[in-house]
Amino acid sequence: MVKIIVDCFGGDKSPGANVLGAVNAVKKNEDICVILTGDEALIRAEVEKAGYSGDRIVVVHAPDVIGCDEKPTDAIKQKTESSMMKGVNMLREDDGIAGFVTTGSSGAAIAAGTLRVGRLKNVSRPAFCPIMPTMAGGFVCVVDSGANVDCTPERLYQFAVMGSIYMKCMLGIESPRVALLNVGTEKEKGDALRKEAYELIEADKSVNFLGNMESRDLISGKYDVVVCDGFSGNVLVKATEGACIEVLKRLKRDIFSSLRNKIGGLFLSSTLKKEKRFFDYRNYGGSIILGTKKIMVKGHGSSTEVSVEKSIEQVYTLASNRLNEKIEEALDKAQ
Amino acid sequence: MVKIIVDCFGGDKSPGANVLGAVNAVKKNEDICVILTGDEALIRAEVEKAGYSGDRIVVVHAPDVIGCDEKPTDAIKQKTESSMMKGVNMLREDDGIAGFVTTGSSGAAIAAGTLRVGRLKNVSRPAFCPIMPTMAGGFVCVVDSGANVDCTPERLYQFAVMGSIYMKCMLGIESPRVALLNVGTEKEKGDALRKEAYELIEADKSVNFLGNMESRDLISGKYDVVVCDGFSGNVLVKATEGACIEVLKRLKRDIFSSLRNKIGGLFLSSTLKKEKRFFDYRNYGGSIILGTKKIMVKGHGSSTEVSVEKSIEQVYTLASNRLNEKIEEALDKAQ
Repeated sequence: MVKIIVDCFGGDKSPGANVLGAVNAVKKNEDICVILTGDEALIRAEVEKAGYSGDRIVVVHAPDVIGCDEKPTDAIKQKTESSMMKGVNMLREDDGIAGFVTTGSSGAAIAAGTLRVGRLKNVSRPAFCPIMPTMAGGFVCVVDSGANVDCTPERLYQFAVMGSIYMKCMLGIESPRVALLNVGTEKEKGDALRKEAYELIEADKSVNFLGNMESRDLISGKYDVVVCDGFSGNVLVKATEGACIEVLKRLKRDIFSSLRNKIGGLFLSSTLKKEKRFFDYRNYGGSIILGTKKIMVKGHGSSTEVSVEKSIEQVYTLASNRLNEKIEEALDKAQ
Repeated sequence: MVKIIVDCFGGDKSPGANVLGAVNAVKKNEDICVILTGDEALIRAEVEKAGYSGDRIVVVHAPDVIGCDEKPTDAIKQKTESSMMKGVNMLREDDGIAGFVTTGSSGAAIAAGTLRVGRLKNVSRPAFCPIMPTMAGGFVCVVDSGANVDCTPERLYQFAVMGSIYMKCMLGIESPRVALLNVGTEKEKGDALRKEAYELIEADKSVNFLGNMESRDLISGKYDVVVCDGFSGNVLVKATEGACIEVLKRLKRDIFSSLRNKIGGLFLSSTLKKEKRFFDYRNYGGSIILGTKKIMVKGHGSSTEVSVEKSIEQVYTLASNRLNEKIEEALDKAQ
């Protein structure tokens, strides 16, 4: 049995989407047991509404919630009775629990992962790592996309190793194609950080390193893992998501601008809906916090029950495939 | 008469698009005189083909070309007979010349601007500054998008001042809305560089500073000037452009995937073409190198005659509106 904690508060659709996602996950997979944290009465009401009465859902009461506008390091210290910190403290103390899912504050989740759950052996800093769909029909992950605004070459190298193992464990990609985000594709491009990181990643033959990548190629499908510092990774992910959403919005506005366009829009309606779904990150599970002692997945703030369910399955898959053990082994060899 | 040099080689469509763009610019504006640099015979043939026989086009022979794969600092030293360096050296020496347009190597143009043409008074480093169309129907410029991969708070502050004056001179925006690219909108977000730059920009009341911006808002239309270091600016611009192009490509593929979609596509064809044009950066003139003693505009490598013409008009507008004098005055006050 794989035990996974789900923080039921802090998201836009909490606790409804979180509870329903958890119920659907345990219904689909007999090997999953979920521990829900948050206001017990509200959660129990949602569990009942979802029609689940089995014993693979446990509720742990936590009366408080960490808001997205709170300072992470303060919140994780002070709000010990919050749904997130009750969950994180159980995760830290109980060896039988495999992982944790939250749709609450990213900052608090990263801080709690780093400071409470703790880092894996040889990992200097955990990284925040979302996955995005590519034009080739696959996925690409970005390590780091915001946990570390300041980075060293060694950290970028560790991100390359962790991202590579993550995509292998998560999607079964035999030899994930790794790229370093840079201002050009030539080896000598970029600042000192990029040049040194390039050398370190290239030297580790267990990483399938394809060299530098320009940001325009993120969703091209040419790469499985993109390595970057948390500042530029954050810029990269949000710019790409933002632009995709803006283009689709613009097209929608166009379609409603004339009768002729409306007719065209009718013929294309199922395709446009499909595209909207394609670019909706909520359909792809959550972002993993790579490098913490337990598997932690942060779903988007506006996660639906589908994305919560996928995040739970993500923890299950990664725990089953021994993600963290493999990261420790790989970084041990690299020492 | 405003004299503008056009480097006719180094672009994908050179010299044809460059010469035709120049001819169209002088035909439209009697106050513009263009000096074309490059292989004289080839340029003269193109001028003749374009049907221009007046005296406002001058050709200066330059047998060599700087390639995009050459190391900028070496190329600008060694290739003195290249179309770019012949132009840059004239620009530097002749006070009567207002500016310079190239579609060649960005790196070489930035290096030549910084090292040969020289910096304006009080400018620590010139910045590369493209403009992009926004969803609100306006434009946003990004300073810096690649000239300075390493930045200081002072440089970011200067970018804010220069970008603000640029958008005023270029588009007549009375009080351009300036934002600092960051990983969140709250004031305390980001690394030390961002925090210090925030304070400096905020302290200058001549800048209409709206605070931090997340990359997803670049083309939203909420801002006129986005300030960033060259590394994250490069990631920002290319990620946004890349994502817009990928989405439109995907839609095109969808439209050809079924008869029903093809019919819809027919009804929407003029709209889709319009959108493709909208997202084609070549329709918006070039990127200015802000902070050099003369106005320098770098058109995209695949610039058409339309974009070359727009780049020439851009130099004309900026020279007429005294861009550089205004930047020097503003930075002088800030000292």
